[in-house]
Amino acid sequence: MVNPFFRNNGPFKFNEILKDLNLRLDEKNKDFIIDIKDLQNSKINEITFFHSKKYKLTANNTKASFCITTENLQDELPKSCKPIIVDNVLVSTSIITAKFYPDSVNDNFDITVDEINNTKFKDIVKFGKNVLIGQNVSIGSNCLIGHNTIIEKNVSIGENCCIGSNTIIRNSLIKDNVKILDNCVIGKHGFGFFPINDQNLRYPHIGIVLIEDNCEIGCGSTIDRGSMSNTIIGKNTYLDNQIHIAHNVKIGENSIIAGQVGIAGSSIIGNNVKIGGQAGISGHLKIGNNVDIAGGSGVIKNIPDNSKVMGYPAKNIREFLRQNK
Amino acid sequence: MVNPFFRNNGPFKFNEILKDLNLRLDEKNKDFIIDIKDLQNSKINEITFFHSKKYKLTANNTKASFCITTENLQDELPKSCKPIIVDNVLVSTSIITAKFYPDSVNDNFDITVDEINNTKFKDIVKFGKNVLIGQNVSIGSNCLIGHNTIIEKNVSIGENCCIGSNTIIRNSLIKDNVKILDNCVIGKHGFGFFPINDQNLRYPHIGIVLIEDNCEIGCGSTIDRGSMSNTIIGKNTYLDNQIHIAHNVKIGENSIIAGQVGIAGSSIIGNNVKIGGQAGISGHLKIGNNVDIAGGSGVIKNIPDNSKVMGYPAKNIREFLRQNK
Amino acid sequence: MVNPFFRNNGPFKFNEILKDLNLRLDEKNKDFIIDIKDLQNSKINEITFFHSKKYKLTANNTKASFCITTENLQDELPKSCKPIIVDNVLVSTSIITAKFYPDSVNDNFDITVDEINNTKFKDIVKFGKNVLIGQNVSIGSNCLIGHNTIIEKNVSIGENCCIGSNTIIRNSLIKDNVKILDNCVIGKHGFGFFPINDQNLRYPHIGIVLIEDNCEIGCGSTIDRGSMSNTIIGKNTYLDNQIHIAHNVKIGENSIIAGQVGIAGSSIIGNNVKIGGQAGISGHLKIGNNVDIAGGSGVIKNIPDNSKVMGYPAKNIREFLRQNK
Repeated sequence: MVNPFFRNNGPFKFNEILKDLNLRLDEKNKDFIIDIKDLQNSKINEITFFHSKKYKLTANNTKASFCITTENLQDELPKSCKPIIVDNVLVSTSIITAKFYPDSVNDNFDITVDEINNTKFKDIVKFGKNVLIGQNVSIGSNCLIGHNTIIEKNVSIGENCCIGSNTIIRNSLIKDNVKILDNCVIGKHGFGFFPINDQNLRYPHIGIVLIEDNCEIGCGSTIDRGSMSNTIIGKNTYLDNQIHIAHNVKIGENSIIAGQVGIAGSSIIGNNVKIGGQAGISGHLKIGNNVDIAGGSGVIKNIPDNSKVMGYPAKNIREFLRQNK
Repeated sequence: MVNPFFRNNGPFKFNEILKDLNLRLDEKNKDFIIDIKDLQNSKINEITFFHSKKYKLTANNTKASFCITTENLQDELPKSCKPIIVDNVLVSTSIITAKFYPDSVNDNFDITVDEINNTKFKDIVKFGKNVLIGQNVSIGSNCLIGHNTIIEKNVSIGENCCIGSNTIIRNSLIKDNVKILDNCVIGKHGFGFFPINDQNLRYPHIGIVLIEDNCEIGCGSTIDRGSMSNTIIGKNTYLDNQIHIAHNVKIGENSIIAGQVGIAGSSIIGNNVKIGGQAGISGHLKIGNNVDIAGGSGVIKNIPDNSKVMGYPAKNIREFLRQNK
Repeated sequence: MVNPFFRNNGPFKFNEILKDLNLRLDEKNKDFIIDIKDLQNSKINEITFFHSKKYKLTANNTKASFCITTENLQDELPKSCKPIIVDNVLVSTSIITAKFYPDSVNDNFDITVDEINNTKFKDIVKFGKNVLIGQNVSIGSNCLIGHNTIIEKNVSIGENCCIGSNTIIRNSLIKDNVKILDNCVIGKHGFGFFPINDQNLRYPHIGIVLIEDNCEIGCGSTIDRGSMSNTIIGKNTYLDNQIHIAHNVKIGENSIIAGQVGIAGSSIIGNNVKIGGQAGISGHLKIGNNVDIAGGSGVIKNIPDNSKVMGYPAKNIREFLRQNK
């Protein structure tokens, strides 16, 4: 369920894509490319990208018709998927994503918002002073929205939700019975860009933030939306204050995350996970179900189900405590 | 000095309490129960709770007439205190606390606030644009309140205080000469709830945040109010930016706490304590007077007076530096 | 380029300075003192201060005519610089700085701001609702300023800048193409004061925050202005969310700093430096060019150019990983 909010400017002809990447045209392939997706979710007539051996297994099984990749990686793709060989997969992917979704690069404040008193939500929401609502917003019954809060464009809020004061939400899908407390920023683009001397190049973020039923997000937290997939907070997961969840992170159900925790981009956290205060989890990791991570830990590798870890780098908690009496 | 702000719905008859907990009624004890307090502060005709051996000594000396506890713990109570045996002490305590203080569970934004220009504070406070004031607020002479700041219900501010902009305060008692800088959230309920699959159960927070004379609280900090006791910042203690102080924490006088420090629930910090940036202190610990905690440390056990500690887990600073050249 | 924004109340006669410090007057020296600066930047007819051996080399070469220092340190000064011997250099410096720059001690909210609609920026800036602008503000062409944002007094913003919503800026010089995202506080005084029992003494902060071209500052970040020098973020340096940059820190060009990093006061970071999430850097350190600091690291000593470090305390990354398998 990627990008329900960003308008897709496609489809584009294959040769149009090649031209934008300064590649030799290919007259045999006139197929229209309909969308750009990640390796796992892409389908026939869609384009995807494959930039690291880490994703070999997913690449082997992609259903995409086209894939931006390198000389060295191309052999991992199935025959049904035509490789597009480039020097830098991420930069080329960025160029093509921006072609499909030009609105997703820019992340400026939403100048189209209106005071809630001038909108249809005036009578169905209980709201504070100075609440602003953008375009393409839906809000379920029995919701509260606090003072100075800004619901920017492309936000869907379910029933019985409480949004605090001074909070900003954009490009997010929030289910029922969710509480988002004060001073949060939800749905901003992630810290994803190509480092280039003098002027970095931001890549598009076409994902959203999806917050499932019964979650709570503490004060001063930031949850960035996904780049090519979504950032997801699973059902009944509670986040304490001052937490940072980077783009593409997925957290399971019934998890409990204490104050000042940070989870770096694209990591996947299981169900029933407990994370103590100030712990940090590096990017692109997989944390299993029923894992306990002690406060202050720094997790730099995958953690299997049912583990209890502590330390920096995080290891088995008993081992850590034995070594650090 | 617990809960000056939450209206007590009691007293209740003993059998009413038993009924709410689905326990067998007890016709001998018809006594009225007047209030619910913690083990240390409860008195005759009050009910308290005792859920962990850690608090054995306090339990031995409680003055409460009734105590929610377990089969195994009941023998620690004095004869003057009648045990009420339950399976889960905290869930039962939560039910009874909510009965006495129904307003303390819910922590939604304060819809009753009014613009300061419409209040009696118009002429005695220097204030910015868009300042909102709730009910049951008092503000001393010579105070400043910055732009977009919201003083919600149940706040008392002393003399010569400076509150920054974009800050939210509720359920707090702030003494004289206190500075609270921009973007803070003070007095929200803590991260305290009973984890239950599909839908966690929040327990009530009837405590307040008490900030003593001459304190300073840095930008973007969050200080949660107490659950059964208060969160306290002692006289002339300074907090830097982006600090998180969890519920029931008590910090002494003349302490200095650098940026991004986090202190977990119910820990008690002494006087003249220095805590370096990003250090974390686990919950339910006791840090003595004149303690120095180096930046980045993770403290997981009690620290005696006059210690200097460093590391994760924090230990004697000389030992840590010798082992980590 | 110190203090372009604070009005200098000088010049003062030498004996006036001595009198304020309760020192014996010196009738031979009737020279006017024009300004107070740090050791490195002060010139003839200016006063400076020298409080630690750490700065011996700079002291040897100072061009200042007068220097507040101690008995023990005075011999490090050149003959052209007259020592002013005091017991506590920092307290005395604080007193004299406040004499030159009385406005720099106090850091209350700016009561003089006006709604942007009432200012000359109405037609040259694209702005959200409830934007406030202070005195002595300049804004270049093609800028965006989000909702509820407050540009307090003494701010200069270049061209093509995007300021998010709920952000507060004061005493800052922001060059071209800079993005400052939501909920930031830029330019507040630092966490610098003299600890004194019962009531700490804040010292003046006459520096500014200088953000060079093409930088990005993430949501919820705080950047404090300098005390005697400036806090500087170099060209094309990107900061993620919830970062804290303390007073007097200088960061070079093309650096990338991930979420929740904290940099303590007066540290100097080189060009092309990468700092992983939640890393912390102690105060008064020098981090070279092209340094990689792994997420979660705690840096407590200087790091030479081209190093890769990890751990707490941070050391060579290979060594750290070998020791912590």
